[in-house]
Amino acid sequence: MRHLLVIGIGAGDPDQLTIEAVKALARLDVAILVDKGDEKRELTDLRRDLLKQHAPTARVVTVDDPERDRAARAYPAAVDEWRRQRAAAFGEVIREHLAEGQTGGFLVWGDPALFDSTLGILDDIVGVEFSYAVVPGISSVSALAARHRIGLNRVGRAVQITTGRRLAAHGIPDGVDDLVVMLDARNAYREVGGDVDIYWGAYLGTPDEILLAGKLDETKDEIDGVRAAARARKGWIMDTYLLRRRDR
Amino acid sequence: MRHLLVIGIGAGDPDQLTIEAVKALARLDVAILVDKGDEKRELTDLRRDLLKQHAPTARVVTVDDPERDRAARAYPAAVDEWRRQRAAAFGEVIREHLAEGQTGGFLVWGDPALFDSTLGILDDIVGVEFSYAVVPGISSVSALAARHRIGLNRVGRAVQITTGRRLAAHGIPDGVDDLVVMLDARNAYREVGGDVDIYWGAYLGTPDEILLAGKLDETKDEIDGVRAAARARKGWIMDTYLLRRRDR
Repeated sequence: MRHLLVIGIGAGDPDQLTIEAVKALARLDVAILVDKGDEKRELTDLRRDLLKQHAPTARVVTVDDPERDRAARAYPAAVDEWRRQRAAAFGEVIREHLAEGQTGGFLVWGDPALFDSTLGILDDIVGVEFSYAVVPGISSVSALAARHRIGLNRVGRAVQITTGRRLAAHGIPDGVDDLVVMLDARNAYREVGGDVDIYWGAYLGTPDEILLAGKLDETKDEIDGVRAAARARKGWIMDTYLLRRRDR
Repeated sequence: MRHLLVIGIGAGDPDQLTIEAVKALARLDVAILVDKGDEKRELTDLRRDLLKQHAPTARVVTVDDPERDRAARAYPAAVDEWRRQRAAAFGEVIREHLAEGQTGGFLVWGDPALFDSTLGILDDIVGVEFSYAVVPGISSVSALAARHRIGLNRVGRAVQITTGRRLAAHGIPDGVDDLVVMLDARNAYREVGGDVDIYWGAYLGTPDEILLAGKLDETKDEIDGVRAAARARKGWIMDTYLLRRRDR
């Protein structure tokens, strides 16, 4: 039987690896890096550094995970076809590069449970038998809260984690006072009204980390500017933020 | 200046410590254990084992954090008084046991950002100067998802993390398809209707770990029974679960 480990490697700081992740990396015969196409060279290098240090004998293979055609989103048949192709590509890499009895590992940024596709893809794979386990990791959400030294929820209250797309469509939902936003490519925080604080972070855990916090309407222009400048300077950005309604 | 580290130590498995947490523990002059009164001997022992291994020279002191009088919840003045007393107790421990220039650490189960009071208490302390930093940890939420090998959110959708009390009061909120419930002392999942799956876990990351999953209405009686039996056997229980609406 082939065995797979889906390993959360933290948000960017190599010290965010858990002992469990270090042990998992040391067990790998093959490390499978998912190339999302948009992943920047720096991030690829960071994962290769982790492997060099913690899995020096593992063979490294890559698998392509091209982004879904946005125009096809509305067509369930096209989405099904895309999922089938993606699972087939992952299945082929496993069949071809991992021998029976060997252990392969996926290195996932953050926590594999939060806004990552790897587990969904493994569910879709047919035609190759394998067992698998998941190693939880420090998500960028946890890293954001730690760097701002805040809780995600307030006493006895809920916190919701959502996407920039959903924030743009729905605003802060009723009954939610603390909302973490990931994958916001469109500065959706700009359109949020009310008495709200923002805790924003980019490149969390890396030497380029940037943190900004304040009353949203007094801070959003600064975040816009810092965000645009950082993206221009580095060529890419990875950021997340918490919106917190002030208590009246 | 005194320095404090609020260190997330993971959900129960000593291997869930991050490298950052191991380094933080090694820096401690004083380890401050919060005694919530209801904490069970096994959990206290587990933290002392972590200290023995990773902070063998740190002095260990404890501070009491008695639970708030439930009858006083409705009286803001009583809550304020209780918070003041609590902050005073923590401040006194810091002043008394930590010398200028020394580093003290709080060992927090899970992630200090999620349903933990330590950061809130530090905000309330007056009369003693200190700097502090937070080390993120693997929360029981991440551990639950990893052990069930599931994502917390589904593609493009939100996940909410809430309390048993809120679930009992509000059910699964509109617009939320994935709801993680913590601190549920009253089996609030029993009253949830609709086409929902549950992923439940107790004593996550420890040798006593129990996992159950299935369609809520077919599984809830089993969870009730397993929960009651485990609590009777061990004298306490720590559990969490994800409720997931099925797609129609």
